[in-house]
Amino acid sequence: MLPGNLKKISLFLERLPGIGEKTANRLAFFLLKLPEKDLEEFAFNIANLKKKTKMCKNCFNLTEEETCLICQDKRRDQGLIVVVESPLDVISFETANIFQGVYHVLHGRIDPLNRVGPEDIKIKELLERVERLVTSSDKFLKEIILATNLDMEGEATALYIKNKIEEIKKKKNVNFEITRLAYGLPMGANLEYADYMTLKKALENRIRF
Amino acid sequence: MLPGNLKKISLFLERLPGIGEKTANRLAFFLLKLPEKDLEEFAFNIANLKKKTKMCKNCFNLTEEETCLICQDKRRDQGLIVVVESPLDVISFETANIFQGVYHVLHGRIDPLNRVGPEDIKIKELLERVERLVTSSDKFLKEIILATNLDMEGEATALYIKNKIEEIKKKKNVNFEITRLAYGLPMGANLEYADYMTLKKALENRIRF
Repeated sequence: MLPGNLKKISLFLERLPGIGEKTANRLAFFLLKLPEKDLEEFAFNIANLKKKTKMCKNCFNLTEEETCLICQDKRRDQGLIVVVESPLDVISFETANIFQGVYHVLHGRIDPLNRVGPEDIKIKELLERVERLVTSSDKFLKEIILATNLDMEGEATALYIKNKIEEIKKKKNVNFEITRLAYGLPMGANLEYADYMTLKKALENRIRF
Repeated sequence: MLPGNLKKISLFLERLPGIGEKTANRLAFFLLKLPEKDLEEFAFNIANLKKKTKMCKNCFNLTEEETCLICQDKRRDQGLIVVVESPLDVISFETANIFQGVYHVLHGRIDPLNRVGPEDIKIKELLERVERLVTSSDKFLKEIILATNLDMEGEATALYIKNKIEEIKKKKNVNFEITRLAYGLPMGANLEYADYMTLKKALENRIRF
C-alpha cells in the first residue's frame, strides 16, 4: 500500500541484515521527513560507494586511496599484524584504541558449509605479505595475532593460517610469534550466567594474580 | 576509521530511528557488497523520494498520483472512514485485510508537550471532508472510526475530533456513528502478564459470549 518509490526503498532496506518489513516501512517513511538536500547527498554517496571504496593494497582494509590510513601511519608498528575477518573488526580495535600495530583483513573466514575455502579469502595475500616482510631487510616482523572470531569457523581459519605461516617460518628459517586472542569471561561477567564452555576456557587460561 | 564515503553513509544511517553507530557501520558495510546496479537504483529512488511522493488530496495517505489507490477504488465504502495518525497505520490495516472502507491520515496527533496543536495536523481537512460528504447528495456517510493510538495523545486527539464532528452533526442536522477502536487484551495474552489498565479496560468492555 506504500506508493511505488517508497515501496521500492522499503524493499531495498528489507534486504539489509536485521531489517524486517515493518522496520523497513518505518525507515522509508522516516526518510520522507528528512530534508531533500540530505537525501540527495545520501543518494550520491550510495551511488558512488562501490566506485570510491577500494581495498588497501597492503592490508585489504577499506580505503579510498591506494593504501589505508593505518598502513600509511609511520608511528604504527608494521611488525605487529592483527589478522581479522572483516573491516568492522578493525573498527572495533581502533575504537577501543588498544593496538598500535597494523592489520590484515581476510574478508571472510573458511566456512566449508557455505562453500568458502581458503582461496576465497585474503589468505594468499597474507602469506605473501609475511614472506615479503621476513625477506625485506629493513622491516622486522615480530608477531602475527590471529583475531578471527572465537567460533568454529574462526578457529578453523586461525588454525589453517597458523599452519601456513609455520611453513614459511621453517622455509625461511625465521622466527616470530603467532598468537591468538584469549578466550575468557567478558568484563563485568556474572559467573552464574556464564556459559559452560566460556567458564571452562576462563579456568584453563587463568592468569597469575 | 571507515573511508570517507562509507563513513558519510554510516553517519546518515545513524540518524534513522533505532539505528546506532555499530548497526550503521554494519549496514554501510553490507551495502558495499550489493551489486552496483542495485545501489544506483536505490540512490535514484532516494534522490527522488520527496519529489515523487505526494499526499492524496482526499485522505492524505501517501501516493504518487493526485488521489491514492484506496480512494480511487470504487469497491471500497466511501461512507466508512478510519482516522489514523500515520500512513504506517494504513499499512497495518491493509495488511490485516480487515477493512473495506477508506482512511483519513492526520499526519500526527495533538501533543502539547511537543508543541503540536490541532492546526498542525490534518484535522481541518478531515472536518471539511466530513462536511462535503454530509452535504453531497450521492454519498452517504455512515461512520467515522477514530483509530488514533490508544495512548494519552491519541485519546486526546480522538476526543478533540469527536467534539468537532459532533458540532458538524448538530449544525447540519445529520446523523452518523462516531466510534473508537476497542481497548482490551491482545490475542494470545496471558492474564498474569497483562498490565493493570488493559485488564481493567478488558473487564469494562467485556462482551456477551
